[in-house]
Formats: sequence, structure tokens, C-alpha cells
Amino acid sequence: MPPVVTEPVTAAGLIPFLDALAGFSAEGPGVTRRAYDDAWCDAHAWLQRQARMLGFAATPDAAGNLLFHGLDVPPHAPALLVGSHLDSVVHGGRLDGAYGLACGFLLVAELRGAGRLPVVGFATCEEEESRFPGALMGARSLIGQAEAGELDAIADERGITWRAALEGARARGCAVAIEDDAHPFAPPFAPRATLEIHIEQGPVLEREGLALGIVEHIAGYRRMRLDVAGEARHSGTTPMRMRRDALAAAAEMVLAVEALGRDANEPAVATAGVLVPEPGLYNVVPGHCTLGVEVRHVDAARLEALAAELLARCRAIAARRRVHVESGDASGQEPTSLSPELAATALDLAQQLGVPHRRMASGAAHDTMVFARAGVPALMLFVPSRGGISHSPDESTAPDQLVAGYRFLVALARRVAERPPR
Amino acid sequence: MPPVVTEPVTAAGLIPFLDALAGFSAEGPGVTRRAYDDAWCDAHAWLQRQARMLGFAATPDAAGNLLFHGLDVPPHAPALLVGSHLDSVVHGGRLDGAYGLACGFLLVAELRGAGRLPVVGFATCEEEESRFPGALMGARSLIGQAEAGELDAIADERGITWRAALEGARARGCAVAIEDDAHPFAPPFAPRATLEIHIEQGPVLEREGLALGIVEHIAGYRRMRLDVAGEARHSGTTPMRMRRDALAAAAEMVLAVEALGRDANEPAVATAGVLVPEPGLYNVVPGHCTLGVEVRHVDAARLEALAAELLARCRAIAARRRVHVESGDASGQEPTSLSPELAATALDLAQQLGVPHRRMASGAAHDTMVFARAGVPALMLFVPSRGGISHSPDESTAPDQLVAGYRFLVALARRVAERPPR
Repeated sequence: MPPVVTEPVTAAGLIPFLDALAGFSAEGPGVTRRAYDDAWCDAHAWLQRQARMLGFAATPDAAGNLLFHGLDVPPHAPALLVGSHLDSVVHGGRLDGAYGLACGFLLVAELRGAGRLPVVGFATCEEEESRFPGALMGARSLIGQAEAGELDAIADERGITWRAALEGARARGCAVAIEDDAHPFAPPFAPRATLEIHIEQGPVLEREGLALGIVEHIAGYRRMRLDVAGEARHSGTTPMRMRRDALAAAAEMVLAVEALGRDANEPAVATAGVLVPEPGLYNVVPGHCTLGVEVRHVDAARLEALAAELLARCRAIAARRRVHVESGDASGQEPTSLSPELAATALDLAQQLGVPHRRMASGAAHDTMVFARAGVPALMLFVPSRGGISHSPDESTAPDQLVAGYRFLVALARRVAERPPR
Repeated sequence: MPPVVTEPVTAAGLIPFLDALAGFSAEGPGVTRRAYDDAWCDAHAWLQRQARMLGFAATPDAAGNLLFHGLDVPPHAPALLVGSHLDSVVHGGRLDGAYGLACGFLLVAELRGAGRLPVVGFATCEEEESRFPGALMGARSLIGQAEAGELDAIADERGITWRAALEGARARGCAVAIEDDAHPFAPPFAPRATLEIHIEQGPVLEREGLALGIVEHIAGYRRMRLDVAGEARHSGTTPMRMRRDALAAAAEMVLAVEALGRDANEPAVATAGVLVPEPGLYNVVPGHCTLGVEVRHVDAARLEALAAELLARCRAIAARRRVHVESGDASGQEPTSLSPELAATALDLAQQLGVPHRRMASGAAHDTMVFARAGVPALMLFVPSRGGISHSPDESTAPDQLVAGYRFLVALARRVAERPPR
């Protein structure tokens, strides 16, 4: 059987493209590119110039999302969207978002004109919430799901609203004017399918020696704040048997959370990441402890069961230790299943090409979640993250692994553009 | 057998005395009387007036300690010192220090002239370290053990030195001038023995239904900071089996500390009061955790063994979990034994008077520690603390328990003044 794809001609450009994009950053270690800030606008303008140089279009929408496409693709046309986000966390790495964006960009250069469905690259304006608590407002605006009211309701830590920041970006050519104030975000293209390639941000592919993760689910999570109340007492004058130590109780809960995550098997995880004992002094038996816990799962029912079991275990610990526990501040996100059809195509292709791969779930949220929930057939691909490290200047993936991921994306996009999902 | 003591005539004054003293406080809940502040100076001046009104002397020393004594007691005379400290913690209670001070004051009024050894009441200037980190500088200066250099080396959180604060108090008549700059703190009397009555600040007497604790030891402590280092990873993308969770490791250590305290039997205690996970977010497996632990014991060798065992247990946990642990910032205080002779006198008297009592150790530091370490026969007495609560506006002891404690102190002081320890 002949190889399914020819070697992508743009692969050689990938690493220099990432190097250049990483240069657009605020000061400090790693990459800091927050939505609409100077580094973000400079990167945005650079991407537009690169597209023009290569002879295709880079079209901003009203939210500052940027779309890369052949000059012959009419507005609102059905399209295969491929890309990722332009923004970064503060002091983040050079690959989170940038890698998928670069791949989408180069793919448009590569596939121009090929396939039945035009391929449109995308760079969403904001995904990390490093500036705006916007709940994936970039992806939502790209498919017309952000509301007009959000422009004034969402603000950064200095009180600058999404609207105000966006106007600054528009003045720099990084967004187009809002035409309909009641419906500010009209989708520039009609997504028939989406693909997003991303670094894993976890250790699984590296540990298992695999090149590719085919992501079938994005896990949901439940977060709970537990307030544990015992009795604050002098550590020197209160015998052990007379203590109601809120920190010792919380410590048992931390271990119960860990045990729950282990017992539940993958892809379940359970984490205690927040713990604040009060008063937090050497010589006082802690009288109060705040504990922040979360559970994640790809299955909604099992996620619910995990959260209930976690609470039950913590309550049992509290009862045995004669402390009080109250749970508050529950927040969460539902699990999202990605397109089984696209996943099957990717699995088939990976086998055909002999790419060492596995099916997996994403434990983190991504723009793709928004597309999948809107009913668009959507798929994510992961490449390994060295040491599982992300959201850090130490974020890294070997260049040959980045290139291999891009090559697979090109092959997959060709196939999907030729035979779009039903 | 006739009763050993007559009813002290001053007992009726105790509760009004405490009420009045509690009125000298900075704003806010409870009592806040920090060394040399306005409330402290006002209380100091009030004590001097009360003494004069009752016909005995209130003599400040160069550190602002206040001595109550008959007008006939010559300077530097051998004396039985009875009292406690005038300062309080911020938002503390009305009894910590004040109770023992009031008892010493009333005792001088009661015993004037009686006994072979004159009874001198004392109010030390600073014990709580609520303003100056002075390591019991009040008691130390009272027996001539504070150094000249400390006057400029010890400063409060605003940078005001002990010397500067003391000058302010002197201007208000709350201290006498320093006569010898090289040896600023000459003991105003030669302590032949000291007694300090104090609220227990712990729950033992209340729980056991006892009126009196005869304190034979003041526990020492060892404090250690443990730095636990694992790997900070995304909570959603890092499977349980691939984690090196610093908080989960620290939680196990918290429980090991608690188990150690329980296993070691009373009066051993072991406490984890400080715990700071980093970064302390819901969605990050903590990569680092600072844990602050202490152990206390009345026996120096067993204290050392406890500290070593604690470290060994924490190191074993770290090794099993593949995290690093380093111990730093060790600090501590040696255990102090009080006068066996005075304890025997008190035990004998308590039995004779039918006062429900027990022998016990103090888990907290007190001025008495300084006297005992200087070789002065010294003893402490405890009365119950409601709920074991102290350093809080909720600090409380039933009036009849306070009065009963005072009555016992009067009886004991009579006996000690008559037959001073050898």
C-alpha cells in the first residue's frame, strides 16, 4: 500500500515559526501573552503579515480571533477549522496554544485548494483566563456563542472590560468593528468540523513512549471547598486526647482524596491542592482548616459519584474526629465527548501510518470543548510534553515530536477535508 | 486539727480588682495591653495608686517591672516574690497574667509583716512577646539577667527599641532611670523563692474536676520547619500513579506527628500547626509544602528523642513517596524543673486543706521558668481555664475557682514565708 500522504512541505517551517512566535512576550521568564496586550497584538500583526506574504488571508473577527484561509474561501462558507489559542498564561511556555496555532497556519499554506472542504486555520483570542475570566470566550465568540452583555461584564484584574481591551486591539488592526451591537459575534465561517493539536500538558505519552494521543473526551470536574472546624488550643497545654485538631482532620481528608483518585482508576483523578490551616502558628492546635479539592472524570455519572463519595469520606473522617465539616463553593464543568467519527478516522490513520499512539482523555479544558458542545464534530490530538510540564517556562517537546504531530495533523486534515464528517 | 489558715481578708477584693485591671486595654475585643503602651502605662499607674492607698509601696525598677512591698522592706532584701505579668497578647483575655499579678498584690496587703521572709508582689513588664520578642525580658531584667545590649537590640514591629519604649514609660512614672549603663537591670530584691499562680490555659483541670494544679515542670519544646518538595503538575492531566504530591506527603506527616504525640504518652505533645502548600490552587498537584511542627516534653532527653523520631518518621514517608524533605529553622527551649521542695510543701498543704488537686506540667512558658533556671526555688500553681481557652477574649475561670486559687496561694505563701526553702 502506498503512503497515504506525501511529506508536508511546510514541516520545515514549524520550529522557526514557533521560535518567532515565542518572541512575542511581555517581560519575565517564559512566554507571557495575555489577551489584547502589547505582546499579543504584536504577535497578531506578525501572523497577519506572514499570511499575506504566503499569499493567503488572515481575517480577524470582532473578538480578535484570527482566521487563516485561502483568498477564494467565501465568508460564512462551511470549513474545517484547525488551530488553537494565541494567548498564554503568565510566565508560561512556548508551546501551549502556539503549537496548535502554528500547525493550523502552516496547514492552510500546505493544503490551499486541496479537498472538498476548505481548511481554515484559527487563532482564538483568549483561552487561558490569564487576563479575563471569560470561560473560553475566544472559542465561544468564534462560533457566535458569546453574548453582547459579556463585553461589559467580563473585566480583567484592573477593571478593564473585555469591550475596552478589544477596542484597543481594534485600533491596532487586531479585530474588526462590531456590526450588530445585540449580536456582536457572528461566526466568520460555518465550522463543519474542528481539529486542535496541542501539547499533552501531562506525562502519559512520554512515559508510555508514544508519539500521539487521540483525544476522545475532555474530562469534567467538580471542585469543593471544605471548611473543617475543630478547636484552636494552645499546643503546649492541650493534651493529645483533648484535641479537636482541624488540620489533622484535614490531613486525613487529603489522604482520603488521594486514595479515592487511586481507587477509581484512570481517567479519574482526585486532588487536594488548597489547604489553609488557621491560625497557622507553631504553638496553636489549628482550630479551622480550609481544604480545596477537585475530582475529574470523562463520564458525567461517574464524576457525580466521585464527588459524592469524596464528600462522604470526608464527613466520616470529621464525625470520627469530632470536628465539623461544611462543603461550600462547589463549581465544576461537565465532561465533553469529542467526535467518535473523527476519532475513528484518526485511529485508522495512525495505524495505517504506523504512528505509536493511544486513545486518551484530556484532563484540562480546551477550545475544542466549546466546539464539541455546540454540536460541531471536533477532535483533539496530543503530542508528548517533556516531564508533563506545562504552564511553565520549562514546557518543552522535542522538535521531532512536534514535527511528527504536525505531519499527522496534515494527513488527518487532508482526509477530513476530503470526506467531511456527516 | 485546726485549719491551717484563716480566711484571707483580701479575697473579696479579687474579682473587682480583676474587673478594674481588665479596663486597661487598647481598643478591640478582649484585653490588649502591650508592654509600655498607653493601656499598660495606665494600668501601671493605677496599680501604684492602689498600693499607696492601701499603705504599702509600689516600686518600679529600671525595666518597668513593678514591685509591691511593705514600706519596711529594705532594698535588695531577701524576699518571697509572688506575682505574674502585666502585659497581654493582642485581643487576649482578662486573666492571663492579670490573675497572678492581682493575687500577688492582694497577698502583700494580706500578709504585711507576717512571716520571717518578706512577701513582695511583682508585675513583670513583658512576658507575652506581643510587642517585643524579648524572651521573657521582664522576668530576666527583674533578676538582673537582661544585658545592656538588649535595650537597643530588641525592637517592636515598628522598629521602636526596648530602650525608646522604656523611656516613654519612664516619662510617665512607670520605670526608674537606669543608673549603670553597663548593668542597667539590678534586681530590686534578692529572691529567696518565687510563686506564680496562673490560669492553666489548658483543659486538664476542668476535665478532671480539680481546683488546683501544682506545677512541677515547665515543658521544653523543639520546633522544626520541614520543606517537602515533590512535582507541581496539572491536576487534570497527571494520572494519580505519576504524581509526586507534596501536600499528600505533608498530610501523612501531619498524621505521623499526631500519632507520635499520642504514642509518647503525657506530658508529651506533638503538633503540626503550620502547613503551606504551593502553589495552593485547585488545579495544580502541589509541588512544594512547608510544614511547621513542634514537640514538647518536660524531660530533656525524651524531648530530644521525640524530635529525632519525628524527623525519622517524616523522612520515611518522604522516601516512600519519592519526595524530598529537608528540615530547617530548628528552634526550641529546654525543659525546666521547678522546686521539688516548694512542690512538696504545696502538695502537703493541698492535702491538708482538702483542695482537689493534681501534680502537673506546664506546656507553656512562664516567667517562673526564668527564676527556676537562675537557681531560685520557684513554683507555679494553676487554676482551671474554662474550655482550656486562653489568648482569647473568651478566656474565663469561674470566680469561685479564682478565689479558691487565691486562698490556697495565701496559705502557701504564709507557710513559705515562715519556713523559706533551704
